[in-house]
Formats: sequence, structure tokens, C-alpha cells
Amino acid sequence: MPQKIAVVIPAGGGGTRLWPRSRQKTPKQFLDIVTPGVSMLQETAARVCPNLVASDHLYVITNKRHIPLVREQLASTPSVNFVGEPMGRDSAPAIGLMAALLERRHGAETVMVALPADHVILDPAAFRDTLRVAIDAAVNGSLVTLGIPPAGPDTGFGYIRRGSALADGDIPVYNVAQFREKPDRATAEAYVASNEYFWNAGMFIATVGHFRSLYKQHLPEMEPAIAQLVDAAGTDSEEEVFAKVFPTLPKVSIDYAIIEKADRVAVVPAHIGWNDVGSWTRLAEIQANQANADANIVTGELRAIDARASLVHAPGKLVALIGLDNLIVIDTEDALLIADRSRSDEVKKIVEQLQTEGRSDLL
Amino acid sequence: MPQKIAVVIPAGGGGTRLWPRSRQKTPKQFLDIVTPGVSMLQETAARVCPNLVASDHLYVITNKRHIPLVREQLASTPSVNFVGEPMGRDSAPAIGLMAALLERRHGAETVMVALPADHVILDPAAFRDTLRVAIDAAVNGSLVTLGIPPAGPDTGFGYIRRGSALADGDIPVYNVAQFREKPDRATAEAYVASNEYFWNAGMFIATVGHFRSLYKQHLPEMEPAIAQLVDAAGTDSEEEVFAKVFPTLPKVSIDYAIIEKADRVAVVPAHIGWNDVGSWTRLAEIQANQANADANIVTGELRAIDARASLVHAPGKLVALIGLDNLIVIDTEDALLIADRSRSDEVKKIVEQLQTEGRSDLL
Repeated sequence: MPQKIAVVIPAGGGGTRLWPRSRQKTPKQFLDIVTPGVSMLQETAARVCPNLVASDHLYVITNKRHIPLVREQLASTPSVNFVGEPMGRDSAPAIGLMAALLERRHGAETVMVALPADHVILDPAAFRDTLRVAIDAAVNGSLVTLGIPPAGPDTGFGYIRRGSALADGDIPVYNVAQFREKPDRATAEAYVASNEYFWNAGMFIATVGHFRSLYKQHLPEMEPAIAQLVDAAGTDSEEEVFAKVFPTLPKVSIDYAIIEKADRVAVVPAHIGWNDVGSWTRLAEIQANQANADANIVTGELRAIDARASLVHAPGKLVALIGLDNLIVIDTEDALLIADRSRSDEVKKIVEQLQTEGRSDLL
Repeated sequence: MPQKIAVVIPAGGGGTRLWPRSRQKTPKQFLDIVTPGVSMLQETAARVCPNLVASDHLYVITNKRHIPLVREQLASTPSVNFVGEPMGRDSAPAIGLMAALLERRHGAETVMVALPADHVILDPAAFRDTLRVAIDAAVNGSLVTLGIPPAGPDTGFGYIRRGSALADGDIPVYNVAQFREKPDRATAEAYVASNEYFWNAGMFIATVGHFRSLYKQHLPEMEPAIAQLVDAAGTDSEEEVFAKVFPTLPKVSIDYAIIEKADRVAVVPAHIGWNDVGSWTRLAEIQANQANADANIVTGELRAIDARASLVHAPGKLVALIGLDNLIVIDTEDALLIADRSRSDEVKKIVEQLQTEGRSDLL
């Protein structure tokens, strides 16, 4: 593929639903949540580099304080580019800044592929094949998103309704008819039954020029700030200018501010073994194939008496479970989570409570 | 009370049912299981010293390797006597050795009070009053045991059936009609309904001369060994002689070998707030009055969402419980127990499994 491509990995999220492993110092994308010894960011980078882009066309944008950690994790991939945000302002400013930066460095015709740092993709080769189709569609003028064929009527994702076919290769491309917010259960069931909907995985592909024109159209008030940031990036004044400009940026998601307002949006069905690891419950589903004879999924050592179907993470420790099924057990040095497996989403409430209490030592 | 008294605290037990806190290096009697910062042995000693005996009449007999720990725990009580066993041979040899040692040091007329190191007694003053009655009965020729008025039809204790009254002061004394092994549930219910039974708490009181004559009668084959041990105790040859003689001693309990075979056995009802902390489940019962509004009993910090009636021990750690009731959670540096509250007895099986595996690091 002769087309110039750059991959941008926004890695600024917090990931509080994977507390107590995910902390402000080390959000989930920097942890080996899925594969022992390999962080989710490292897996994300390895999926596309060097097989889709060279490392000098790979960009990671994350909170400034995580840059040393990111550099360390990607040390074996030299020439990767890092952009540090002095504070998180959600995804629209981050992607907007990256589009402007890539325009200057690589040209408006470069295709920008934006990939979240905290997803599971079990079939990287299929993923790259799907991305290549999306990139072609982007070159042909579409803003492209990957659509995950729903595994069920999940209410935790936004949905994308496909419209008419744009291209019908082995991997087809559809126009997007509509984006839908996270639905209630009945609506999700109707979506799945219709066979017209995909999960929105938050992966976006378009030429840099296309992104830039969308930002100019839908977020024109941000343009002066973006120009200041791009001028300062990589210079001695970067730190000072970023620190001054970032607080003025709108805190808004790219989905809301750009994608859902754009015309010529396309979706490529992505049969790639995708999951988002949005909770311990979901991780237990993803790792079901690693379960032992009692259906327990264990990091560390487990001795179980009449105890089944739990996710146990306690490296370096022996855990004894007696007479209890369907638990989430996550042990760390200073915090221990024990939750009913169906209710691990409520970890959010624990984190909120600790925030209210000002317990930054545990966040 | 002009009577000479000596208190003997056998502290050699293992206490595997309180794993993972109770370990071979630090069995439960040396841990602050009930009162933060105070070990059960320290509590046992403080109940009788100095209010019943001076410290030079207090004896602790335990495994030799625990003597440094015991000395440290009782450092603020100088002049306490320590006897180290090179190996555990159950209670009959330990008490037999102590009776012979006390005979030589303090005389046959001394009353020996043997008190396990791992009991909870919530009313120490009532306990001492009860002991004084028992000591009087011992001086008058009885082998005396304390009888715990049953709180319910517990199948985890041996029972004592009282016979005729020997003395009827504020605290009466009865002849013992019968000792009974741990009963099944129906039998226990019948015992409790009859109002004639007490729990056997394993506390024995008799003059040293009385104990000596019982041992000569019922364990005569042990006498030469006992004589060797007493001759060596406190001399330069103690270590050598103990190491040689102990392996030859019968491994048998004082209940089986002596008490149940004796005549003139008396029982004193002991309304003293007694419990034996034989399991985490029982500790949770004992500490019910320390429970928070959600009925959780916590050492460490707990944040609970829809989670009640659990015993949580995790000092220095924050535990988050979500959607789970009636747990036992015991966290230590290298092992974590999570059990259904009604099934903590099965910790024994975990310990047995670890023994089978040769996991001495966790025992």
C-alpha cells in the first residue's frame, strides 16, 4: 500500500472500572491486564507497528506525567512519537491536535488511524486487513469507523446502524445511517435482531485533511488554540504553551463534537475478536478460555473448596476460596476488591467514594 | 487466700483453623486475634497475674522454638517461668512434667491451675472468683474442672454432666457424673435441654500431689521419663535430655489419659464470658458487638456496597466488598482466605492440602 499512514494512539484515559489495579499513576492501558507481562498499550502498538506503519509514523498522546512510563514500555520500538498533555481534555482536542500536527509533519493526504490503547483484539491479522480496507475508504473520501458485529444485546456500548453498501469486497464498507447512544436492553435486543447494527469501538480513520476540515467546520473556535499548540510542539516553548492553552480547550468527545455531525461517514465490519475490557466482569468473559477445571481464572495460586467461576488476581499470593462462586477477587498491595462477578461495574462507586473522601493514596 | 498456687499455661497448640493468620511460626495463641495489639497468651497471663498468682508462680510450657517469642510477649511480666518442649507430645506429657516440676519447686500441696493459652474470657474478675472456688475444692481433695454453661447445642465441644452438689456457695461445686465426647446435634440439644451439662473448656485444677498420684496411677510407664526431665530442667543438660526423652513420651491428651479416668472429679460452673475462638466463624460471633452498621467486623478499612455481616481482617489495606454477604476475609502478606462465613471450619482442609504439597512456606 503506497498510501502514507500514521497511527495515533490516545492513551489518556483513567480506567477507574478496573480499580484497584488501574490507578491514576498507572491506568489500565499501561498494565498487563490481558496478557501477563505485556501492557495493553504495548499490545496496541505491536498490532500496527511495524506491520502497518513504521515506528516513526506511530504517535502516542497521553497525559504528560505518563510519558516516561510510555517511553519505557515502548523502548524496544525506537522512533515512536510522544505527545504529552498537561491535562486530559477528552478526545476531541487530542485528536484535533494530532490531525494538525500530522498535517504539518506528514501532509494533508496522510491517512490518520486513531486507535484506543485499551482494547482487546484477538485476531491482529484480521484487524490489519480490516484497517487496510478502511484506509482505502478514507483515501476515497470517507470518515471511516470500525463496526464490531455485536456478540449480544450489550447495553454498555454505543451502536452504529449501517446504510447502503459503499464497497463489497471480502470486507465490505457501508455508509453509516445513524449513530446511537448506549441503548436500554429492549432497544439493544431490537438492534441485534435487525442485523443492521454494530458496536461502536471508537476507532476512526480519515485523511488528515479530512479531519482538519471537519474540525474547522464543527469546532472552529478551537482553531487558534490548535495552531498555537502545533507551533509550540517540539520546541523549547512547548511546555509553557501547552500549560497555558490546554485549560482553554473544550472538554468534549470526538464522537459528540465531530463524528456524529459529519457527512460521508462509513463503517467497516470488523471481525477481529474485539473487546473493550471495560470491567472485571468483561475481563472474566474474555479470559474464559484460560479457566481451570473449576472454571476459575487465576493469576497467583488458588486452592478452592467448592468454589467455581471466579476471576482471581493475586500475584505472589496464595488465595484460598471456600464455598463461594462467581467472585471477582483483585488483590493489590494496598487495596483488595471482592465483588460479586455480575456487579463489578459498581467498582466505579467505590472509586467515586474514595475521590469524595480525598483518598488520593488509593486512586 | 494463703494457699500456694501456681498457674500453668500450656501454649503448644498449632491452631490451623485460624489459618492464614495462625502459622507454625506464630500459632494463634501468640497473635492478637481478639484484642488488637494483645496476644491471646498475653491476655491469658494478664487474667491471673498478678491478681491470682505472682509472676514467679506463672509457668508457660510451649514448643522450644517459640520460647523467644513468649519471652518477648511477657517481657513486662518479669520472673515468669518458661519450659520449652523440643516437640509437641499433646497435653498429658506436658501437664505431667509440669506437675512433677512444681512438686520439686513449690511442694506437693501447691494447687496447680492449668489454663489453655487460646481462650476468650470476657469477665476476668468472675473468672478469678470461679478459680478461687475451684482452688478451694482442689485443696479439699477434688480434681476440678471449669464447666461452661452452654450457650447452645454446640457440637464442637466435649460436655460434662454434673452430679450431686459438693458445695453450694454463690458459685456452687458439683461432682462430675460423666464426661462426654463431642456429640451429634440431637444429643447436644438433649444435653442443653436437660440443664445438667456444661461445655468442657479444658481447664483443670488440683493440688500438685493429686496430679502426681493420678499420673502414677494412670500413666506409670511415663514416670521414669518424667523424673529424667525434672532432674535435667534448668541444668546445663536440659537441652540434651529433653531432646532424648521427649520422642519417647506417649502422644496423648490429659483428658483421655487422666481426667476421664479419675475419681473425685468436680466441676464449677463458670459464668465468665468464655469462648474458644476455634474458627473464624466463632471469632465473628465473639466480635459481633464490634460490628459496624452493616454488621461487618473490620480490621483495616472497608468500603461496602450492598455487603453485610462479614468478618474482614486486612490491616493496612482497604477492602472493597460489592454485593456479597457473610464472608470471612483474612488477608496476610502471602495468603488470602475468602470463605463463606458458615464454612470457615474447612480451612483445615486447605491447611491439610498445603501440608500434603509440602508448602511449609505457607504453614
